[in-house]
Amino acid sequence: MSEKVYIYDTTLRDGSQAEGVNFSIEDKLRIIKKLDEFGIDYIECGWPGSNPKDTLLFEKLKNIKLNHSKIVAFGATRRPGKRPEEDPQLENLIKAQPQAITIFGKSWDLHVLEALRTTLEENLDMVAGSIAYLKRYVPEVIFDAEHFFDGYKRNPEYALKVIQYAIEGGADWIVLCDTNGGCLPHEVYEITKKVVETFPEAKIGIHAHNDSDTAVANSIMAVLAGARQVHGTINGIGERTGNANLCSIIPNLQLKLGFKVVPEENLKKLTELSHFVAEISNMPVPRNMPYVGESAFAHKAGVHASAVMKRSDTYEHIDPSLVGNRRKITVSDLSGKSNIVYKLREMGIEVDERSPEVLKLVEKIKELEKEGYHFEAAEASFELLCKRHFGLVRNYFDLDAYRVLIAKRSTDELPVSEATVRLSVGGVKEHTASLGNGPVSALDSALRKALEEFYPNLKEVQLIDYKVRIVNESEGTSAKVRVLIESTDGKRKWGTVGVSENIIEASWIALTDSIVYKLMKDEEEME
Amino acid sequence: MSEKVYIYDTTLRDGSQAEGVNFSIEDKLRIIKKLDEFGIDYIECGWPGSNPKDTLLFEKLKNIKLNHSKIVAFGATRRPGKRPEEDPQLENLIKAQPQAITIFGKSWDLHVLEALRTTLEENLDMVAGSIAYLKRYVPEVIFDAEHFFDGYKRNPEYALKVIQYAIEGGADWIVLCDTNGGCLPHEVYEITKKVVETFPEAKIGIHAHNDSDTAVANSIMAVLAGARQVHGTINGIGERTGNANLCSIIPNLQLKLGFKVVPEENLKKLTELSHFVAEISNMPVPRNMPYVGESAFAHKAGVHASAVMKRSDTYEHIDPSLVGNRRKITVSDLSGKSNIVYKLREMGIEVDERSPEVLKLVEKIKELEKEGYHFEAAEASFELLCKRHFGLVRNYFDLDAYRVLIAKRSTDELPVSEATVRLSVGGVKEHTASLGNGPVSALDSALRKALEEFYPNLKEVQLIDYKVRIVNESEGTSAKVRVLIESTDGKRKWGTVGVSENIIEASWIALTDSIVYKLMKDEEEME
Repeated sequence: MSEKVYIYDTTLRDGSQAEGVNFSIEDKLRIIKKLDEFGIDYIECGWPGSNPKDTLLFEKLKNIKLNHSKIVAFGATRRPGKRPEEDPQLENLIKAQPQAITIFGKSWDLHVLEALRTTLEENLDMVAGSIAYLKRYVPEVIFDAEHFFDGYKRNPEYALKVIQYAIEGGADWIVLCDTNGGCLPHEVYEITKKVVETFPEAKIGIHAHNDSDTAVANSIMAVLAGARQVHGTINGIGERTGNANLCSIIPNLQLKLGFKVVPEENLKKLTELSHFVAEISNMPVPRNMPYVGESAFAHKAGVHASAVMKRSDTYEHIDPSLVGNRRKITVSDLSGKSNIVYKLREMGIEVDERSPEVLKLVEKIKELEKEGYHFEAAEASFELLCKRHFGLVRNYFDLDAYRVLIAKRSTDELPVSEATVRLSVGGVKEHTASLGNGPVSALDSALRKALEEFYPNLKEVQLIDYKVRIVNESEGTSAKVRVLIESTDGKRKWGTVGVSENIIEASWIALTDSIVYKLMKDEEEME
Repeated sequence: MSEKVYIYDTTLRDGSQAEGVNFSIEDKLRIIKKLDEFGIDYIECGWPGSNPKDTLLFEKLKNIKLNHSKIVAFGATRRPGKRPEEDPQLENLIKAQPQAITIFGKSWDLHVLEALRTTLEENLDMVAGSIAYLKRYVPEVIFDAEHFFDGYKRNPEYALKVIQYAIEGGADWIVLCDTNGGCLPHEVYEITKKVVETFPEAKIGIHAHNDSDTAVANSIMAVLAGARQVHGTINGIGERTGNANLCSIIPNLQLKLGFKVVPEENLKKLTELSHFVAEISNMPVPRNMPYVGESAFAHKAGVHASAVMKRSDTYEHIDPSLVGNRRKITVSDLSGKSNIVYKLREMGIEVDERSPEVLKLVEKIKELEKEGYHFEAAEASFELLCKRHFGLVRNYFDLDAYRVLIAKRSTDELPVSEATVRLSVGGVKEHTASLGNGPVSALDSALRKALEEFYPNLKEVQLIDYKVRIVNESEGTSAKVRVLIESTDGKRKWGTVGVSENIIEASWIALTDSIVYKLMKDEEEME
């Protein structure tokens, strides 16, 4: 077998329903870029028209060219009793100009009668009519049959009729949804098989939720029954117990069942992709998450560990490097080292893997990771770290001191933030003061005041995102704080990181990294 | 169907292999008691003789009478070239006087030759001989066929022969182990079925690991193929990606497939059992864990939430009370009036949906959400907001002013953070100062200094998590910051939120909400 299975990512739509997840437009654009690089086939970006944020996102996407992925807009069938042309919701989907549109419709008779309060016939026409209408405007229409499995269990005839109408309407894909996540793998297999046999010409997909703790298995079983499109989210984030986890489904399909899913070299970036989305969504990857978790290939038991060294297939179901993860037992961490050499090469630093300088760098990185640093969403800090290690970053300024004061003088008043910075650039002393909305912006402002005279290109730099996370690495004695900053100068965007027990100091580290990165990059370009 | 499936818990043995888990003897005894109350059939308590702790545990267990569960000791087949009588390891198992003994043996030919370095024939005799020997001393012997599925895939004949010898040796149960967790559900089904058909008289079990993210599904599929004993751990804890999660398997088998697993009234204690083991093992239950997680029945989207109220089967695969969990309507910008009334009712505030007070509250919440507030992870702030709205929160203190100073005096030095707080409690003025690792901890510390004299119960409060996020909902002109704080007093856990352009002010709001919530809850309990 080397048949293709198409991956449909809904991290930005269904995934964003997870408690605690809230993507900004910037977040969404960064994730889309990463999913495209990874080779995801379809990216469901949101529901244009349902809220201003999603509408704006699709506006921005019109000017963005992706290499591989298709941009998908999500919506619903037309309302009962109206023609598709009269439905503003469908209008919004078309206006968003995506490469594909997914609409969901009811396939459970009871829901048609009780939730939609319309007739079973009208629902069939809503499905077929909406799809046919959309097909005039977009190249690809995908139909999500909501509650398909529950519907099929109660009234198989009607559920299949909905599918038939969707196909007749011209849907390119029919996706069977286990909307409340209640199905078990054998049911998904049998029902999917029935659909595939009933409509041998149709292309079928699966959309599973994890309420029975079997979303990955359900997706796999549907593929074995003939489905060729799989919906899910990175790290399985989503409402309630989450959606099917693409980070498990993709390697299961590709490494174990021989399907073609993503290019082999991309699969090696799976762990990175998982941790990237985790950082952006502020939902850490559980240690024990299959394939991509920190402990997924960790070996504690002495017996096991030595057996693993002897014969890795004993306690490792796959070679961890195939998904960009690594075994965790030994000190001589070859996979880690070769990753870093690969990264260095990307930066234009050619070094031998066994050189002592590389070993020292690996040690330094490990040390920083132990302290709470995370470089997946802070590539600029990582680049600076490496280039500093090889003496490739010049000294743009020397700090003498900074001070920040926040004072609130009465309950009803906003506090005042004032920062002072004392530094020198090539021997010239600067001492500046500035106010800000908060302590970090005051500090940022005082720092720029001191530097812009020497480096006017810093005026182009803007902070676009700021994230803070407590790092309680096991010891728990003194909680550290990790600050992630995203900056842009209009041309580029870059992420930097700082870790400290003090949130202002952590911000300061990320802030100065951001500025130094900008200065370095501009100089590199001039060369 | 109302056939019995036997549950075999290995939380204390395989589960304790998880990174970060380390049970004391006291811990183990508490868990054993809880598992017994819940109605687990077999409890694997450890490997007597392998370490002094396990040996001592079995000593203590000799004096403890359980109501339902059988105490199981775990070990291995005899060593090659020795008689069972000469093997001190088997001796230790017998001395432990458990109700059942489980021993594992090789069923993958390659491992016999390479790891054991003995002949295939000797291995068969080790299996049959060890079991027969143990059967003289204990009522029940269970055989774990290690690497059975991998072994079967390579050499089915030999793998089956090992089973045959185990049966001939007198094993009461034959457990098929997917030791490296690499199998997918359809393979487990087919291979288990083959075993069941080959040995129709034997009682078969399944032992799955979660490396392919399908351990629960694999266990279910094995049962569907005829297995009647399922091994797993509470919350799925275990080495690498963990063992099969009993908290998902038990309700799947009992509620969805109609097997008899535990008494119906015990199933209602599943969520409690899960959280109990999480506390003891210091491995928090992930929010999104199926059946037992805090968000397993949480509904965010307004459309969904109102549908759930109407017809719960729409987005709930089971009634949450069946496993002792509960529905959770989370408040988000998508939700409406009926959600809020539902929440008020939970707080004991009975109001009419159309009362002007409710409308005003809805308006206030919408306003706050526009400002960047998010209440999903800050239920305590939400409760305070509602109760304040109805005049149900008393005034614990009045703030006059606070100041925070962060000063860094040289590049190599950590900055110093100092905070002062001026407030009054019932007319009594307090003015305090404190240092901290960072500005927030300094402020927290000064605030407590001022209040603890009046409210000594605040000493119980600890901050356990702190998250910060930029809120660029608006035009992005002045970026706001959202701070989420999670606190605990040992008994409860609660989340609070603050939003401001100033990170210190946002932290202050969340901090004071946390303190007021604690004071209010303690007073409510006294009433």
